[in-house]
Amino acid sequence: MIPGDGIGIEVTEATEPLLIELAAAHDVEIETTWFDWGSERYLEEGALMPDDGLETLKEFDAILLGAVGHPDVPDHVTLRNLRLPITKGFNQHICKRPSYLFDGVESPLRGYEGGDIDLVVYRQNTEGEYADVGGREHQGFGNEVAVQSAVYTREGTEAIVRAAFEAATERSGKLTNITKSNAQAYGMVFWDEIVEEVSEEYPDITVERLLVDAGSMDFVRRPNEFDVVVASNLFGDILTDIGGIISGSLGMAPSTNINPSGEFPSMFEPVHGSAFDIMGEGIANPVGMLLSMSLMFEHLEEDDLAETLWDGVGAQLADSDAPRTPDIGGSATTLDVVGDLEERLLE
Amino acid sequence: MIPGDGIGIEVTEATEPLLIELAAAHDVEIETTWFDWGSERYLEEGALMPDDGLETLKEFDAILLGAVGHPDVPDHVTLRNLRLPITKGFNQHICKRPSYLFDGVESPLRGYEGGDIDLVVYRQNTEGEYADVGGREHQGFGNEVAVQSAVYTREGTEAIVRAAFEAATERSGKLTNITKSNAQAYGMVFWDEIVEEVSEEYPDITVERLLVDAGSMDFVRRPNEFDVVVASNLFGDILTDIGGIISGSLGMAPSTNINPSGEFPSMFEPVHGSAFDIMGEGIANPVGMLLSMSLMFEHLEEDDLAETLWDGVGAQLADSDAPRTPDIGGSATTLDVVGDLEERLLE
Ligand SMILES: CC(C)[C@H](C(=O)O)[C@@H](O)C(=O)O
Ligand SMILES: CC(C)[C@H](C(=O)O)[C@@H](O)C(=O)O
Repeated sequence: MIPGDGIGIEVTEATEPLLIELAAAHDVEIETTWFDWGSERYLEEGALMPDDGLETLKEFDAILLGAVGHPDVPDHVTLRNLRLPITKGFNQHICKRPSYLFDGVESPLRGYEGGDIDLVVYRQNTEGEYADVGGREHQGFGNEVAVQSAVYTREGTEAIVRAAFEAATERSGKLTNITKSNAQAYGMVFWDEIVEEVSEEYPDITVERLLVDAGSMDFVRRPNEFDVVVASNLFGDILTDIGGIISGSLGMAPSTNINPSGEFPSMFEPVHGSAFDIMGEGIANPVGMLLSMSLMFEHLEEDDLAETLWDGVGAQLADSDAPRTPDIGGSATTLDVVGDLEERLLE
Repeated sequence: MIPGDGIGIEVTEATEPLLIELAAAHDVEIETTWFDWGSERYLEEGALMPDDGLETLKEFDAILLGAVGHPDVPDHVTLRNLRLPITKGFNQHICKRPSYLFDGVESPLRGYEGGDIDLVVYRQNTEGEYADVGGREHQGFGNEVAVQSAVYTREGTEAIVRAAFEAATERSGKLTNITKSNAQAYGMVFWDEIVEEVSEEYPDITVERLLVDAGSMDFVRRPNEFDVVVASNLFGDILTDIGGIISGSLGMAPSTNINPSGEFPSMFEPVHGSAFDIMGEGIANPVGMLLSMSLMFEHLEEDDLAETLWDGVGAQLADSDAPRTPDIGGSATTLDVVGDLEERLLE
């Protein structure tokens, strides 16, 4: 358990007891270890996590992360100090993020109702536009230039593309590949070629190609037509935030960082950030974390637990009398929501 | 006039007579020259435009482009062969794209009505993520790597940032800077520094910073709160497609490619592409082109004409009896819409 910063801490602390009890009720014993890594630690000791952080984490079956980000720490410092070392260090190439519009939740999109939006984005998670490669230089005549390089490897790209094809096989057989190959003739054309290659192993999957501008627009225009989507690190980042809002609130969006070989632990976290604007008010939506826990169970092959938790959250959201947090139109606290869910699932 | 491909040709041919007549009615004489550059030319002669294309265009006051793109020509060929040579060759650093929800037009966003959405994106137009810089290599052990580099210069960045601050001064005094500085510590941090520097010359402008994932989401969640937005080439591309759809249809979104020094002609075009799926049906929405023409008049300091055309389109859209194309819920043709507007403006 790495609660991290801001509301990351709030949702982690609020949901962990339920996680353990629910597992116990299914005869699964969960043992948690807490690490107070994050921006406060950085501000005191100069690093978000200790030097041997990865060594320590390596021993665990799974990692739950709350959120990292702090107004006094530059974002790229936060990222380079904690999230990237873990996702890259553990080859967590695969970021799977479902967007699901639950019954009883209002989408900001006209005419969309529960169940209409049911898509999953497979986002490359270890390289691409997030590569820490680049530089800048003062040139003559007062000019200056900065270069930011995206790096795509066959290994990293194949891993996510293959995961997406596998998912498409289990779901509706349709895969949408979102790139920007008209403007990025090196990285994105390489990506498209790998999609093309891998598609030959999956002759039954229909592949649709979209450019990221059109893809972002179509997440608003016709989200119901998407099923499995595969995209680069940056495009996946953008698309999943849009996916979060069209299915109600970013506070409900879950995320996974999966090491496909199973050699290292995978990491699960809500998509929402540390949200310092609402920190301390106790009103953070716990649903993003709860659904992330469900995806963790799925990854650990505890399918029963995964389903129970997911369906429990769904039933709670569908019940207009159940407590809900302000971001989805209620006035309940984080603990109200978790308490009510606990009653539904355990009593 | 470069009608280009697909519906680009349809909207250009349909609207040009109105452009000329309207100008004449305001004692402005417009002389047009037509160039049949585009993908058909590429398929026959191997290039979308002739070698001396830029030399030829240089003599004109303004360029109107329909759209380029063809199913048989790879997108990056199209781009490198026509649009990029013009925008880069003529230092058209500034892409200004308003998103305006007209009265009488339905947004796919719940609860948004005419006038609620009134923002303008200033998109860097000559460099950044669209730089044609990169490469790929086969490495040992069957691995392969592709690099795609974004290039930001002080000149190109300052030009767009300054234009955005100028616009903010003329509008509400608020500017939103959308980057991804937490993940891109070279290019985007450089960009942020230039925004910071230029902001010192505009002490009255309030600058808000957003990351592109949150920004894309907020274009859906709270588009009414944006006024002037500044973003890189790629982020501007994504944001303006979202801006197009939330204000009704991409078919209505206008665009400009402005050379700030005035040394070279600027170029005006609708945001929609060549749309081969509806080509030949005569149902392309001419509004994107008409509003682009209005922005051209503004650029040429024919403010009266600019306003007359913009307001004419607005009045037509607000009139529920007026013809409209299928993309915004009507069943009229391109020519019906232009004909009706002609009556409104000239009779
Ligand atoms: C916190 C940030 C670095 C992160 C990202 O850009 O990947 C976030 O936006 C996300 O989507 O998980
Ligand atoms: C056609 C394409 C290259 C272009 C772009 O990406 O800039 C288009 O999407 C646009 O927004 O004008």
